Amino acid sequence: MLDHIRIVLVNTTHPGNIGAVARAMKNMGLADLCLVEPKHFPDEAATARASGATDILDAARVVGTLEEAVGDCQLVVGTSARGRHIPWPVIDPRELAAIAAPLSGQSRVAILFGREDRGLTNEELHACHLHVHIPSVEGFSSLNIAAAVQVVCYELRMAVLQDVRAERPQWGTDWDIELADHVELERLFEHLERTLVDIEFLDPNNPRQLMPRLRRLLLRAVPDKVEVNVLRGILKMVDRAVAGELRGQRVGRSKAD
Amino acid sequence: MLDHIRIVLVNTTHPGNIGAVARAMKNMGLADLCLVEPKHFPDEAATARASGATDILDAARVVGTLEEAVGDCQLVVGTSARGRHIPWPVIDPRELAAIAAPLSGQSRVAILFGREDRGLTNEELHACHLHVHIPSVEGFSSLNIAAAVQVVCYELRMAVLQDVRAERPQWGTDWDIELADHVELERLFEHLERTLVDIEFLDPNNPRQLMPRLRRLLLRAVPDKVEVNVLRGILKMVDRAVAGELRGQRVGRSKAD
Repeated sequence: MLDHIRIVLVNTTHPGNIGAVARAMKNMGLADLCLVEPKHFPDEAATARASGATDILDAARVVGTLEEAVGDCQLVVGTSARGRHIPWPVIDPRELAAIAAPLSGQSRVAILFGREDRGLTNEELHACHLHVHIPSVEGFSSLNIAAAVQVVCYELRMAVLQDVRAERPQWGTDWDIELADHVELERLFEHLERTLVDIEFLDPNNPRQLMPRLRRLLLRAVPDKVEVNVLRGILKMVDRAVAGELRGQRVGRSKAD
Repeated sequence: MLDHIRIVLVNTTHPGNIGAVARAMKNMGLADLCLVEPKHFPDEAATARASGATDILDAARVVGTLEEAVGDCQLVVGTSARGRHIPWPVIDPRELAAIAAPLSGQSRVAILFGREDRGLTNEELHACHLHVHIPSVEGFSSLNIAAAVQVVCYELRMAVLQDVRAERPQWGTDWDIELADHVELERLFEHLERTLVDIEFLDPNNPRQLMPRLRRLLLRAVPDKVEVNVLRGILKMVDRAVAGELRGQRVGRSKAD
């Protein structure tokens, strides 16, 4: 779904970073990597840091100019720190993803990442339709190149997944056991109340706000059916303890016998 | 603005990753780093990869147990791949940021990142209120630890920069009683476990998934301090019932007297 997106690394110095970029891309479902004049590639350090994303490294295209890397792309985006002297349209990675992810099947997109020490040149940035800026802290704004690729690819993947995702707020559990219904919960609370009286924690003549507090706590958690059964099981065993029916209590108890 | 968020790295093997984490944190405006039993720290590789974020490394707290790392935190979140055998509430980094960023000044938040090869253990994950999953590709889902920290810290910074307060999912209570912290919750769970053994509901030789289920239920509810005290009070009375010390049980019980 993101196969129309190409990650372009310009003049990367450290091959380890190229490997880390390949890993970040593969984690997020991207595959098209293009390297413009890398200092060292292929390289063992790249393979090591790719940590299994060697298919991305093997398929990476190595070219001599930016032109060759982006010539077939309709949208070219350069990553940049703020404050270049000619203002350019600047977006953040989320906005980039909102623009680029839906272009699948229509347009090819290149996202450029510059040198570790100096980023992209002004000339390279002026070849771009848009600049993307990761909103880092002023005074410590330069991300590691693989970290920057990770953030951009993460936003692209989130944009793809969010089309599928419902936007409702979380309620209840998100696993496969059915939620307890009202009747099951009320039976649980009745049982709990009886047991609390039996263990002399709840004084029926002065109940204060105890049951409302416990109801509120459990209702916040929105228990499933298995959880309600577990709690009922615990209450039954407490009832037996109160009645002196546990194995450990049986001997010598005239009243319980 | 994110000084209530602590990044906790558990048993990190490669010191370079610790440095890269420090850089990612500083880029995004976080400063509180805690290391649980790192293999090698301090280390030259950490300093090199920190690339200027040495203040974060210098201030990092090194501790021996997870307990020490998160004891004072009201919200504990573990990073996890999908598919653990007991489902737990799972959110993505954007949802985490929407919950955690606005807690500044109210609650302290720990976000745990596990070992490079195995992540967090089930026991560590069961100490968490929530699990955060970075939505990676199935079949190549394991991010580099610094890349994972980068994504989470990026989302936290985005949440600070955009005002997401209005649409954040509910977390915790919205009344004035302080939330229980990790230590209070762990004491509750320990007490609960002892009592469940005493009432013969929990077989210590075959505990199955009982405690994880109960932890999950209560952690979903995010109990406040009063609620924890009420639950501890109930457990104390059950203990007395098991010991045959309730007023209603005293008469004629030779063993208890």
